[in-house]
Amino acid sequence: MTGKTFAEKQLSEKSGRDVRAGDYVEADIDVAMAHDITGPLAFRTFDEVTDGEGSLFAPEQTVFTIDHHAPADGVQAANNHNALREFAAEHGAHQYDVGDGICHQVLVEEGHVGPGDLVIGADSHSTSYGGLGAFGTGVGSTDLGTALATGELWFRVPETKRFEVEGDLPDAVYAKDLILKFIGDVGFAGCTYMAAEYGGSTIEDLPIHERFVLTNMAIEMGGKAGIVEPDERTARYLEAETGSPPDIDVEDPALHSDSDAEYEAVHRYRAEEIAPQVSVPSNPENAVDIGEVEGTAVDQLFVGTCTNGRFEDMQVVADIIEGEELPPDVRMVVVPASGAVYQKMLETGVLTTFVDAGAVVQSAGCGPCAGYHQGVLGDGDVCLATANRNFPGREGSMDSEVYLASPATVGASALYGEITDPRRVETKRFDDVALAQGARP
Amino acid sequence: MTGKTFAEKQLSEKSGRDVRAGDYVEADIDVAMAHDITGPLAFRTFDEVTDGEGSLFAPEQTVFTIDHHAPADGVQAANNHNALREFAAEHGAHQYDVGDGICHQVLVEEGHVGPGDLVIGADSHSTSYGGLGAFGTGVGSTDLGTALATGELWFRVPETKRFEVEGDLPDAVYAKDLILKFIGDVGFAGCTYMAAEYGGSTIEDLPIHERFVLTNMAIEMGGKAGIVEPDERTARYLEAETGSPPDIDVEDPALHSDSDAEYEAVHRYRAEEIAPQVSVPSNPENAVDIGEVEGTAVDQLFVGTCTNGRFEDMQVVADIIEGEELPPDVRMVVVPASGAVYQKMLETGVLTTFVDAGAVVQSAGCGPCAGYHQGVLGDGDVCLATANRNFPGREGSMDSEVYLASPATVGASALYGEITDPRRVETKRFDDVALAQGARP
Repeated sequence: MTGKTFAEKQLSEKSGRDVRAGDYVEADIDVAMAHDITGPLAFRTFDEVTDGEGSLFAPEQTVFTIDHHAPADGVQAANNHNALREFAAEHGAHQYDVGDGICHQVLVEEGHVGPGDLVIGADSHSTSYGGLGAFGTGVGSTDLGTALATGELWFRVPETKRFEVEGDLPDAVYAKDLILKFIGDVGFAGCTYMAAEYGGSTIEDLPIHERFVLTNMAIEMGGKAGIVEPDERTARYLEAETGSPPDIDVEDPALHSDSDAEYEAVHRYRAEEIAPQVSVPSNPENAVDIGEVEGTAVDQLFVGTCTNGRFEDMQVVADIIEGEELPPDVRMVVVPASGAVYQKMLETGVLTTFVDAGAVVQSAGCGPCAGYHQGVLGDGDVCLATANRNFPGREGSMDSEVYLASPATVGASALYGEITDPRRVETKRFDDVALAQGARP
Repeated sequence: MTGKTFAEKQLSEKSGRDVRAGDYVEADIDVAMAHDITGPLAFRTFDEVTDGEGSLFAPEQTVFTIDHHAPADGVQAANNHNALREFAAEHGAHQYDVGDGICHQVLVEEGHVGPGDLVIGADSHSTSYGGLGAFGTGVGSTDLGTALATGELWFRVPETKRFEVEGDLPDAVYAKDLILKFIGDVGFAGCTYMAAEYGGSTIEDLPIHERFVLTNMAIEMGGKAGIVEPDERTARYLEAETGSPPDIDVEDPALHSDSDAEYEAVHRYRAEEIAPQVSVPSNPENAVDIGEVEGTAVDQLFVGTCTNGRFEDMQVVADIIEGEELPPDVRMVVVPASGAVYQKMLETGVLTTFVDAGAVVQSAGCGPCAGYHQGVLGDGDVCLATANRNFPGREGSMDSEVYLASPATVGASALYGEITDPRRVETKRFDDVALAQGARP
């Protein structure tokens, strides 16, 4: 019999059974998360299944965030915030408020998630946690509401598709370019209900904030999970972010696919051959080499989201636009992924760089990513975003268009008001662990 | 025959006739303004009255701002922004964009308004401009749309009600307390279609940013205009803000009411007798001495608006909360009145003070003042705001409540999470001219 994948091992471990892709399991949840949109719906289910007298399976492993409509952009949003605050207080769960940031960033920064955790979040980008070697997946509010009471959820053990990249990334090419390339290659449904596993020397060399980009967007090809196996870098990152090392051995074979594991497929890449990618409207799978769309005029640039709203992303953009001003008629909206990111931007002058260039900076949260507020697009508007989705109407009008790219591409494009190859400017890479440990760029 | 009021002189001057209160005139407009809500409506009228072939009466005296839904919080808002940008570009008008700030602040900072100007704005708080000795008034979008083409508008020359204050303001009492007191005394309709004129030694001693508070809220008692006669301080302020002195003699009798002018009424106050005021829900006229509502718990604090979102206001709050943290369960939303205010907050550390205390700071604009976004209130929420209106539902839910107070009162209340007498803490006053000239607090 062949070896097992990370996903098979994780769901075996969490279900107490020896399972393989295709099996169905009932697994123990380590962390459950919901936000201001999905939380109140989940609470309704929780109250139904517990006759209004329920207690959380584990309050200390339950986290609620206010990020999608933060600050409240309407009465319904404000009422949802209050419902979330009240439920969290009543049941003793962790709760983060307006300005604390996006769930996927906050859970990592605050040490709620570590390698080997099974994390369910009522948000589709919960695949993000795989960047730490956790099995993270998005679930509906109903599933989450039930799991809040039971601490368990059923899963079909996913097949795994592996993306293996070897070699050194060229200048100006980042994890965002890799994931857009992968999605472009396998298509929007290319990993449906599979685990997308990312490996090879290039991935091993990626700092953790870049790994999150890969796992975050696994869902854009249908992935049930996105996984980068944990390593020493993961351990150092967690220690730097949270102040204490993970209480798990990152070398534990349980956290790594066996060398003879059976994959649904393995896609192999040479890093040197990857060009900066842009996903053109209106599907993330429409990834093209940037040369195909260079010169496309943009009205708005958006830097943020759970994909690319981390400090290192902000720094990449700021480094490019420092001392420059946005062209006339071009707007830039910047929304840090967390309050900690905002603070770091403030302390290091990155925030000032954005403001001096003519950008507007909002408090931490999801911003206009899903078209709710803080920079919604009107008819005919064209946006280049560091975001994760560009479906019709995603950031506003059904007659608007969203292009997706890396922070470096957005930064370079900010100089000219049109989609610009970041290889035309000087770009840098930033080491998240060094930064988290207090080094200054 | 008695002398004339400022309002009578201004409308005589602008109409070329010798008129008195009660007369009807057609007057020449010096400055016309609209924002992202009212602009697009005005443009429709403009196109109707000019058969779509009109030109502005004076492009250089026409100003459009994007402030009420900035950044766009919906597709309609984004489309309105684009309509405003296109109209301004087509007709050569001044246009300010997302993050530049609130109309009333931007027009002053950018030197569009000076003493003796007749300013119409498609926004009710256009009475603000009276803080510089201009006759500013709010008009509907239809009136504005016509005036954009003709440069004229009809007025009934208003009677004038004078508020005269003598003496020194006590510690922790500011212009906001004065205007709430006035509104409380004469009532919500106490100045309907009148000019509210503010004078006396206390007013003469007020820095200009404080005078704006008085004229801004003239509309909350129905005022057609709010007026503080210009003086040397006005001239110095304008020179500091815009880099050049006003091209008008502030001592010109045309800019001052005659000593024997006929007033509808004169209300006299001793500054020493004024306590910090709070306007309780749900009408600005419900002003009470703060002692009557001390201890009222608040969920949200809001610092901003065209009334009290200036740098000096931010500084008053920051000075009180510096080094402190908001109590649990209390949120603070800060929205600077302009991009210049935001910049100054950033440069001086005031922004950092807010963020360190746990507040969220948004880019410049109207914020949640009118309940659109950036901190809308939910059912049962109680907000203490430096804003100008607290009608039912003003900042969100019809079941929310808004209390109005000075920045000092909001700052003191931020320490305890309940309405707190600012005389319990140390409060400062800041000199706007010195600040504008580069002095650092």
